[in-house]
Amino acid sequence: MDFITLLGLAAAILTTIAFLPQMFKTWQTKSAKDVSLVMLITFMSGLFLWLIYGIYLQALPIILANSMTLFFNFIILWLKIKYR
Amino acid sequence: MDFITLLGLAAAILTTIAFLPQMFKTWQTKSAKDVSLVMLITFMSGLFLWLIYGIYLQALPIILANSMTLFFNFIILWLKIKYR
Repeated sequence: MDFITLLGLAAAILTTIAFLPQMFKTWQTKSAKDVSLVMLITFMSGLFLWLIYGIYLQALPIILANSMTLFFNFIILWLKIKYR
Repeated sequence: MDFITLLGLAAAILTTIAFLPQMFKTWQTKSAKDVSLVMLITFMSGLFLWLIYGIYLQALPIILANSMTLFFNFIILWLKIKYR
């Protein structure tokens, strides 16, 4: 695997797993008051388009990264609504 | 501009501007207690790698989207530390 592919993989992994700590924090504190609902919905819409983009190009890294990030943000959104 | 380029552009714009509402909410409420510090730092590290990736490939869309998202998240991080 060449350097640039490794760099892209590392970037994709970091920007995907980044939402795990937010998910756990919201689950533990049972509070997401400071997390913007508009940000979550806008970000998830963008992730959904990236997912369609990846499927269209049949690019597995884009599909994997964006579907996982979309899933994690969906859970954060669900917890935010639940703990209103 | 073909469909797939438009789709990628729309996805990039949404996942970039998504952080503006979070920035304004944090600035207005002067509170970011519920926003995970670990998420911000991990996400920003990933965005930085995407930026290097974009520069390496000389791909302007990747450079623009990730530098702006990195800038917005830097402001959110700064506000979070300021309003501790």
